Amino acid sequence: MARRHPREMKLKVYADRMSQPSRAVIVFCKVNGIDFEEVRVDISKRQHLTPEFAEINPFAKVPAIVDGRFKLSESHAILIYLACAFPGVPDHWYPADLLRRAKIQSVLDWHHSNLRKGAVGYVLNSTLAPAFGLPLNPEAATKAAEVLSSSLSTIESIWLKGKGHFLLGGFQPTIADLSLVCEIMQLEVLDEKDRDRFLGPHKKVQEWIENTRKATQPHFDEVHKILMKAKMMLQARRTASGKAPLISKI
Amino acid sequence: MARRHPREMKLKVYADRMSQPSRAVIVFCKVNGIDFEEVRVDISKRQHLTPEFAEINPFAKVPAIVDGRFKLSESHAILIYLACAFPGVPDHWYPADLLRRAKIQSVLDWHHSNLRKGAVGYVLNSTLAPAFGLPLNPEAATKAAEVLSSSLSTIESIWLKGKGHFLLGGFQPTIADLSLVCEIMQLEVLDEKDRDRFLGPHKKVQEWIENTRKATQPHFDEVHKILMKAKMMLQARRTASGKAPLISKI
Repeated sequence: MARRHPREMKLKVYADRMSQPSRAVIVFCKVNGIDFEEVRVDISKRQHLTPEFAEINPFAKVPAIVDGRFKLSESHAILIYLACAFPGVPDHWYPADLLRRAKIQSVLDWHHSNLRKGAVGYVLNSTLAPAFGLPLNPEAATKAAEVLSSSLSTIESIWLKGKGHFLLGGFQPTIADLSLVCEIMQLEVLDEKDRDRFLGPHKKVQEWIENTRKATQPHFDEVHKILMKAKMMLQARRTASGKAPLISKI
Repeated sequence: MARRHPREMKLKVYADRMSQPSRAVIVFCKVNGIDFEEVRVDISKRQHLTPEFAEINPFAKVPAIVDGRFKLSESHAILIYLACAFPGVPDHWYPADLLRRAKIQSVLDWHHSNLRKGAVGYVLNSTLAPAFGLPLNPEAATKAAEVLSSSLSTIESIWLKGKGHFLLGGFQPTIADLSLVCEIMQLEVLDEKDRDRFLGPHKKVQEWIENTRKATQPHFDEVHKILMKAKMMLQARRTASGKAPLISKI
């Protein structure tokens, strides 16, 4: 599984730190000492829709990477590739053991149709839509809230069932911990009470978020700074207007 | 990546052939001569919701496998596991080469939020919902149709861009070809004109479906027999009633 040729050019990571899969990839690179250049693709300025970025990723999404002549999109595929291609990455992130690896893959697949669907659907339709020129959609938000709540229950009762500090009973984080925790972190932009409604009932999920954060410090907090800035701006506007927040630019 | 212990018990595959990821896993096992026992979990009889099946897969979804004491769900994770755990599986299904493998992973991740979302959403809401005790939902079907059309365009223009007969310019199929083609095959239950509306504009997609079918015969057709039976029943009802079909049992 080792990489085929020596690395002549620095890895490029095309990302917007307001995107949760972008944050997962950046934290992963930083925690593992991967030498990379972060190229900002500002979604709020529609930079992901330029012809230049289409050359990097025809799907017009972040994150995407370029490693030499090799281009790759989709954050899970990127995390798996980086874990395998960079020899300094500790085994626990994506273990060589076939059975552990299969279980991690299963969590990552589950993530797509459950946690991601619920979290993105809720945060976008209840809070962030105006920042992307879209209307808020309370009906879609209600449906997404159900998926989100159910996904958090599943994480609590199934994926965090073991005695370990991480998913699948692990004592060290895997790429699945990082990917899922970064997804959940976007709930920070919600109204405090609303966020508590989702996370409050799930003590194990809260501990696991904190465990993953601690295991990836100081990079975790540094990469999430932009999200915390957005959170404060939204809180200030809620307090000032007493209405649903509208953010045009973060 | 080889399996850690010799196989003492036959692999069990819990599946309903009316589910497209179930079909992908069964075709894969048959094509690769994997010795397995198929355990039917009839979704129309709600057998996936029994306490017995919760012991196999707490997510109550098919397909799921049990290999010795190891349990696994999510069809992509299962296909990757089988390709790695059974030494007789030819390399082309899930190549050891890191770059090829990363690209396959990227297609599989893309599949979740695009082709699967569109195809399942459209077929369920336009045609199959009554078979599961749900109402048809024309509005949801219209939205899903957009995702489906866009996904098929992407397959045609990006994933099938190369000179090969399969995705990513390959000359032999990978697990991504099998997974995506099985997904598209569910469009067979649609009205002929409706199916043509989606597939007609995409000649490369049509050729690729046929290439994947040929590369996995006679198993591909055998495993899809139940779908063809459903297709004929639905056609007969459409002809008889001139209305949207209602199937209670296939």
